[in-house]
Amino acid sequence: MISNRASEALAGGSLIRKMFDEGARMRRELGSDRVYDFSLGNPDLPPPGLVASAIRELAFDPPPDLHFYMNNAGHEAVRSAIARRIARRTGLPVAASRVLMTSGAAAGLNAALRVLLDPGDEVLVLAPYFVEYPAYIRNHGGQPVIVPCDPETFLPDPGRIAAAMTPRTRVLLLNSPNNPSGVIYPAPVLVSVRDALARRGEELGTRVTVLSDEPYADIVYDGRTVPETLSIFTDMILCTSYSKSLALPGERIGYAVVHPGAEDGDRLFAAMVQAHRSLGFVNAPATFQRVIQRVYDALDALPDGAAGEGGALVDVRRYEVRRNRLHGILTEAGFECRLPEGALYLFPRAMIADDVAFAMACTKEGILLVPGSGFGMPGFVRLAFCVDEGMIERSREAFLRVGRTFGTR
Amino acid sequence: MISNRASEALAGGSLIRKMFDEGARMRRELGSDRVYDFSLGNPDLPPPGLVASAIRELAFDPPPDLHFYMNNAGHEAVRSAIARRIARRTGLPVAASRVLMTSGAAAGLNAALRVLLDPGDEVLVLAPYFVEYPAYIRNHGGQPVIVPCDPETFLPDPGRIAAAMTPRTRVLLLNSPNNPSGVIYPAPVLVSVRDALARRGEELGTRVTVLSDEPYADIVYDGRTVPETLSIFTDMILCTSYSKSLALPGERIGYAVVHPGAEDGDRLFAAMVQAHRSLGFVNAPATFQRVIQRVYDALDALPDGAAGEGGALVDVRRYEVRRNRLHGILTEAGFECRLPEGALYLFPRAMIADDVAFAMACTKEGILLVPGSGFGMPGFVRLAFCVDEGMIERSREAFLRVGRTFGTR
Repeated sequence: MISNRASEALAGGSLIRKMFDEGARMRRELGSDRVYDFSLGNPDLPPPGLVASAIRELAFDPPPDLHFYMNNAGHEAVRSAIARRIARRTGLPVAASRVLMTSGAAAGLNAALRVLLDPGDEVLVLAPYFVEYPAYIRNHGGQPVIVPCDPETFLPDPGRIAAAMTPRTRVLLLNSPNNPSGVIYPAPVLVSVRDALARRGEELGTRVTVLSDEPYADIVYDGRTVPETLSIFTDMILCTSYSKSLALPGERIGYAVVHPGAEDGDRLFAAMVQAHRSLGFVNAPATFQRVIQRVYDALDALPDGAAGEGGALVDVRRYEVRRNRLHGILTEAGFECRLPEGALYLFPRAMIADDVAFAMACTKEGILLVPGSGFGMPGFVRLAFCVDEGMIERSREAFLRVGRTFGTR
Repeated sequence: MISNRASEALAGGSLIRKMFDEGARMRRELGSDRVYDFSLGNPDLPPPGLVASAIRELAFDPPPDLHFYMNNAGHEAVRSAIARRIARRTGLPVAASRVLMTSGAAAGLNAALRVLLDPGDEVLVLAPYFVEYPAYIRNHGGQPVIVPCDPETFLPDPGRIAAAMTPRTRVLLLNSPNNPSGVIYPAPVLVSVRDALARRGEELGTRVTVLSDEPYADIVYDGRTVPETLSIFTDMILCTSYSKSLALPGERIGYAVVHPGAEDGDRLFAAMVQAHRSLGFVNAPATFQRVIQRVYDALDALPDGAAGEGGALVDVRRYEVRRNRLHGILTEAGFECRLPEGALYLFPRAMIADDVAFAMACTKEGILLVPGSGFGMPGFVRLAFCVDEGMIERSREAFLRVGRTFGTR
């Protein structure tokens, strides 16, 4: 009954979700206390107080059209609030007419790929990458072309990107801060990537659009900031969500921005709105569009500097504490692991070459993590640290046992 | 920058949305009082009180994981509540494990088409049809094959359906109560359709899955009921939403059910969950899953018969009054128009053969309606009656003028 295509996809499945389901099974079997589940990037901190207040206000005093359809692109007020903030941050003339409210970043990415690709077109994906990107690309008949980052720094290599380009290359997918590596791509690296795309594109007579997936832009540590991709690239669509910055992953609310200087940008935007509708999203969830608008209104009413510009009001410091602690435990256990600059993941080297076998071995100690193979980076494993501090602490002995079994020191 | 495919889609556009935008423009120009907008099926009644209470409860006393990710298929409690109600209604052993919470019916339809179709496969679409179906099918490389209904009764013709089947036919899309015709397909007609599919399928050595889109199942008039498609078809996926029955169109909340007897049903369901995730829906909006669950809990706590079985708690009687009034006005103006049995639309014959020209002519009187061409049924126009009673009343003179200009009596 199911198509060949779906049958293949099913056989592939998602390693992350398999681990998530395995975690549920293990918790039933061993009890929650003896399972250390680092498999899913499910922000577990409550949304910031402004979000909760906005929801209460809307619940108790709902505007009459709260749950109705609106313009497919979203409510004008929230689109304007977003445009104003981006314009202020970048100095670019970003207007509400280039902001599409989307059902999360995944919706924006799918809509963008739908309008950028014809069947057989190629999309450059930098490894390591978010596990769903190849599926997103294949949804629209595209061909993912994996371009490995430097295995030491996890940074994009402009030379390898240029070398991977063909006349069919239409899109470069960017994701910084990166899931799973936690690396922030620095501005000079992005500039080199832009120049490589332009140079090689000129030789090939093609133009590559950058599709930048930035849900972690506000989740950064050690006082770091993330370069403004809109200030570097022009043929670009930015997709993001409030899943991490406002801890609303289950609500599916985000937005996409078509760069004000993008070639044929008005048609591109109109096509995005149509694709977002016709793929079945129709419009971003109505109530949460208003929630976001009210959060921005409340932020605008605060005195200067009282809140982060980006709206990152979730308690990032608490994620930082957890990052530090889990990194300390892994290092103590003998893992080789960079300290992530952003996002919610540690991405250490697996202690044996076969990361899938290593992840399976870890489950014997009650530890759930995701093999790097799922992210196009075999030999590594991903651990989400958006988890309870107590679980991190309790996991120490289990990691030390893994270290004693597999470690080299 | 945009693909050929997107460029074509853009050129097509949606007649409904064009009318919606035209309406906004006209309201600005003429003032709201002189525009009679019947173009969009945007339920304008407030959600039933149970919905509002559930939202208030959740806002005031949120469960700690309210906004988190959950199993991609949805929260177990709401899936169980839905499964129980369907099982009770149909006598079929429908389990929660076959209920997928979706971001509206459009999400369920796209996920289903994604898993049922390989590129080039054909989908039978009964005209008149919901305007987005061809786009949904093309999203997944499918080929829509339009099968006209009887132009007098708007009922499916089993003979024509069988004749349209080829070895590539994989899906029949059903939509009853029908948008735009308002017709409920009676059980004997559906049984004939089922038998025709089986008979012709056997000759061709193929098996056709019925994809039944039922967002209007609870919006029916004159004491009518809608046949249970799950009791008639077996290789079937039901998709629906709470957009109309609970007046929540902007929130994107609905569900899909894979029939308990469907061939290879478990894999089909697993593939649906994966497709819903990978198309970018990830999961149905979290808070509104809980809202639906609480509405069902509240209904279960009511004494027997105090609320409609289907959860149709929006004020259907008020839609019925509007239907009657608008139908009266159209008839008075000389339109030839059936009284719809369900859904939110009147679908009269246009007064001249060219329905697009007729719709444009109506805008001169301030009347916005959608040409039947958009629904695969030229020669008709669609009017949504989920609009303010005052607007219906005020539109009378405009319709009478249209009648005097174009009418034959």
